[in-house]
Amino acid sequence: MKVVIVGGVAGGASCAARLRRLDEKAEIVMVERGPYVSYANCGLPYHVGGVIPEEGKLLVATEQMFRAIFGVDVRTNCEAVAIDRAKKTVDLKNVATGEVTTESYDKLVLSPGAAPIRPPLPGIDLPGIFSVRTVPDARTIREWLQKKEPPHSGMDSYTGQQVVTKPERAVVVGGGFIGLEMVENFVHLGLEVTLVEKLDQVMPPLDPEMARLVERYLEKHGVKVVLGDGVAGFTQEKDGSLNVLTGSGKAFPADVVILAIGVKPETALAKGAGLELGARGGIRVDEHMTTSDPDILAVGDAIEVKDFVTGQWTLIPLAGPANRQGRIAADVIAGRDSRYRGTQGTSICKIFEGVIGQTGPSEKLLRMLGDTDFEKVYLYPNSHAGYYPGAKMLAVKALFRKSDGRLLGAQVLGEDGVAARVNAFAMAIQMKATVWDLEEAELVYAPPFGSAKDPVNFAGMVAGNLLRGDMPLVHWDGTAGNLLLDVRNAPELAVESVPGAVHIPLPELRARLGELPRDKEIHVICRSAVRAYYATRILLQNGFTAKNISGGMLTRSHRATA
Amino acid sequence: MKVVIVGGVAGGASCAARLRRLDEKAEIVMVERGPYVSYANCGLPYHVGGVIPEEGKLLVATEQMFRAIFGVDVRTNCEAVAIDRAKKTVDLKNVATGEVTTESYDKLVLSPGAAPIRPPLPGIDLPGIFSVRTVPDARTIREWLQKKEPPHSGMDSYTGQQVVTKPERAVVVGGGFIGLEMVENFVHLGLEVTLVEKLDQVMPPLDPEMARLVERYLEKHGVKVVLGDGVAGFTQEKDGSLNVLTGSGKAFPADVVILAIGVKPETALAKGAGLELGARGGIRVDEHMTTSDPDILAVGDAIEVKDFVTGQWTLIPLAGPANRQGRIAADVIAGRDSRYRGTQGTSICKIFEGVIGQTGPSEKLLRMLGDTDFEKVYLYPNSHAGYYPGAKMLAVKALFRKSDGRLLGAQVLGEDGVAARVNAFAMAIQMKATVWDLEEAELVYAPPFGSAKDPVNFAGMVAGNLLRGDMPLVHWDGTAGNLLLDVRNAPELAVESVPGAVHIPLPELRARLGELPRDKEIHVICRSAVRAYYATRILLQNGFTAKNISGGMLTRSHRATA
Repeated sequence: MKVVIVGGVAGGASCAARLRRLDEKAEIVMVERGPYVSYANCGLPYHVGGVIPEEGKLLVATEQMFRAIFGVDVRTNCEAVAIDRAKKTVDLKNVATGEVTTESYDKLVLSPGAAPIRPPLPGIDLPGIFSVRTVPDARTIREWLQKKEPPHSGMDSYTGQQVVTKPERAVVVGGGFIGLEMVENFVHLGLEVTLVEKLDQVMPPLDPEMARLVERYLEKHGVKVVLGDGVAGFTQEKDGSLNVLTGSGKAFPADVVILAIGVKPETALAKGAGLELGARGGIRVDEHMTTSDPDILAVGDAIEVKDFVTGQWTLIPLAGPANRQGRIAADVIAGRDSRYRGTQGTSICKIFEGVIGQTGPSEKLLRMLGDTDFEKVYLYPNSHAGYYPGAKMLAVKALFRKSDGRLLGAQVLGEDGVAARVNAFAMAIQMKATVWDLEEAELVYAPPFGSAKDPVNFAGMVAGNLLRGDMPLVHWDGTAGNLLLDVRNAPELAVESVPGAVHIPLPELRARLGELPRDKEIHVICRSAVRAYYATRILLQNGFTAKNISGGMLTRSHRATA
Repeated sequence: MKVVIVGGVAGGASCAARLRRLDEKAEIVMVERGPYVSYANCGLPYHVGGVIPEEGKLLVATEQMFRAIFGVDVRTNCEAVAIDRAKKTVDLKNVATGEVTTESYDKLVLSPGAAPIRPPLPGIDLPGIFSVRTVPDARTIREWLQKKEPPHSGMDSYTGQQVVTKPERAVVVGGGFIGLEMVENFVHLGLEVTLVEKLDQVMPPLDPEMARLVERYLEKHGVKVVLGDGVAGFTQEKDGSLNVLTGSGKAFPADVVILAIGVKPETALAKGAGLELGARGGIRVDEHMTTSDPDILAVGDAIEVKDFVTGQWTLIPLAGPANRQGRIAADVIAGRDSRYRGTQGTSICKIFEGVIGQTGPSEKLLRMLGDTDFEKVYLYPNSHAGYYPGAKMLAVKALFRKSDGRLLGAQVLGEDGVAARVNAFAMAIQMKATVWDLEEAELVYAPPFGSAKDPVNFAGMVAGNLLRGDMPLVHWDGTAGNLLLDVRNAPELAVESVPGAVHIPLPELRARLGELPRDKEIHVICRSAVRAYYATRILLQNGFTAKNISGGMLTRSHRATA
């Protein structure tokens, strides 16, 4: 058995190591176009930012280790350029010499990854415009930042004090994971950073109103956030600095530009070999990671995956799924019945002190698919017991089936305890848990870590109250024409009030029911929708028609600008 | 409908609030023996330690709030002393005046909690010996610590320097959650702390070899840990200080003593009313939280619960379950079919920089129940990508069914990312996930938070490899009489080696197979059992009989003393 693996990073490297463990006798050839195998491309932004100072740290497993421990014939700087499916051979080009050799295979695994999108815009090839995908990319950016003039210094004419001004200005194009991580790292390096994003939100997998909370972190740290404006081109000044031109006609000066507008599957090799591609442009595989050719498997960012929740084919370039797919491909080659279950899109991203976590589809994705059998809740619980120091408010949005209560997706943002909740939601989605299961979940609790009712429980309870009919919910976009009742206390209204809302503090509600109309639908407001829930219960049981406004004033504040 | 709720903290308070939301018209009387309702007793150790300086912060919801918002007739300092089930009345005693009144009920909810165990030892009533269960308990301890003499100070006779010695010595009796939290808080206050525990391990829900890791944290912070030695009594010195005498004849001087040897269900009221109790001494309820009297429900630390995994009746006094039980009791009273699913025993505890998390039964519990259909794995993954700063090693023990792969329990210890993994394991157990599900779990990954293969995935993979027969495992107690093969590198053996083990570094193994016997079972050693797994695969496929020693040297080091 001879197996050739094209691509030596996440999926390919996992496949090679697993295959060797399953088959001591197989001949395994792993070719990698770049100079390194199994490197940590998720760490690249932090290497550029100096958080991970040593480049060597990014090399998770070396070529030497693959040879010595796994007996893999590793060939770096070696690009697979053509497949002859009939002869079962693959042509390999030595990137340095251009020499092409032909390698036979019994099974071929494609793990070529995805390439940063680099649209043919005017000026795109000017010096100082970079992508962040490989170790050499990061090295080039670091060198670029270092070779710039040292910071100008001089005397402040007013105070007479010595001042150091840093002229370095960075423009990051694209507000996804890599874009945001680059923004953070450039801010850490002391650069002035502008983020330009074509969509009207950062972090595209999130719903826009949740992304607003991310934008707040960016703005808090002095990042200029430009939304709804795509890049149209680049020009260069006499001093070598760049201008990033946008579709709306703006120009942003920059000493360094990062293009992080997404990646596209590397399918040239597969396409050239006549392998089936999907509508999204990725290599089509079945649950055994097998392409339309039974002797060719494919894994990682280059393939289309089934969305675990929606069942739709999609592109979700994430390291975790790539690694698991590589492992499954090895199993399949070794004759085992391993199957890939699909991708949930579980992700997490640090942006300054904030953490953005998500699992499962967003509301906008469900809507795009025409799905109407879902509801959503917003909640704002503490990350841990409020009486223990360091508790932070989490913003949670949960999506679930109206018909059967199944959890579909969750978005969690905050500064503490995000991973612990997203992991619980992620496992719940994987196991097809319902909101009733979330209500009864028994998660960790001690004052430094949670509450007796965890945010995940609360999400289940709020959703459960809705589905049981105990708490009719309305969202801020559905309140028009109805009576708004604000049950907060007077000092809270002094800070921010809702125009036209009737005000009765919750503790006075039972005594003042006579002031409310019985012929109108009453939409109840409080800060986070907890007191409004209590008020809604009082109103409903007293014969009023009432709904709780989901997420209260807290949701209003980030929806308002969404 | 008139409902009397006995006990106004976790379970009782949750029940009252939920019941009001479900039934606006019910008459709800909630009586609490102590001065406060709904207080945070989980926060008490941190209040003693000054981490939560204000006592008021511990009052999660006040009596006034229960009256104003939930319309609950709250009576504090009011003890329920007798139930007349035939008449459906409960006698209530005013703790201050001793006056007894009789209250009728349609439904009665018992949430009396559990009382600290205070054995009738000689000297148990000496001043300075405290339990930590209520806000007044914490206040009394704080006052005791404050009224002590200020630290002695004087001149060091050798160095001539001014020295301040703190004579305060604390002895904490009992190494469970409260005991450990008190130890930490006393150390923070600058006391010399001795922990005396009758069992041969701290943190009794853990398996002993995992508890060893907790003991290391204690010792690192200067805590004197005395195991396997119970308290036999207390004596007082002339200066008022105490001696804690142990069964082995030792005496530990103390200025303050905390008794934290567990709690027992408060069942006097239930017993007096002839309600059925379980063999463990808790009130027996069905899945609707209903006692042997259909009009009396019971919740919280006073009841026996079904262990969700083992199905056995047990006592698990935890705040999360108590709150959910209170909610379910309210549902049932309101005519709903809510059911309690049982308790998993999910817990977490901070001890200095360490975090101890657990969900599901321990190995020793399974053994005590005579369960033999389980296996265990140990693993030591990084809390997040090793190349990103701050990664810490986690110690993970996972227990699962041999027959069907179902996850039974997990113990996770470390300094980073414990909650995120225990929550994932907890949700997995709740949803009856298998180790195959853990292998495929899609959890959060970005360099600051995890790895492309999360520790939870690794646990599933190691267990899966075992169950599939790919990786025969042996534990350190099963290696006698077999050939030990150490595949670590020479510098590692220089630090610590295993007597009698043959040494062949993993990269040399294939070339040196001829040195190994084919007629012996080979047990393979490395640091954490990863390289030993690779070696085991090489050996098995080359016709040797081989097993991986679970957890490698890392497990050996903590099992050695277990």
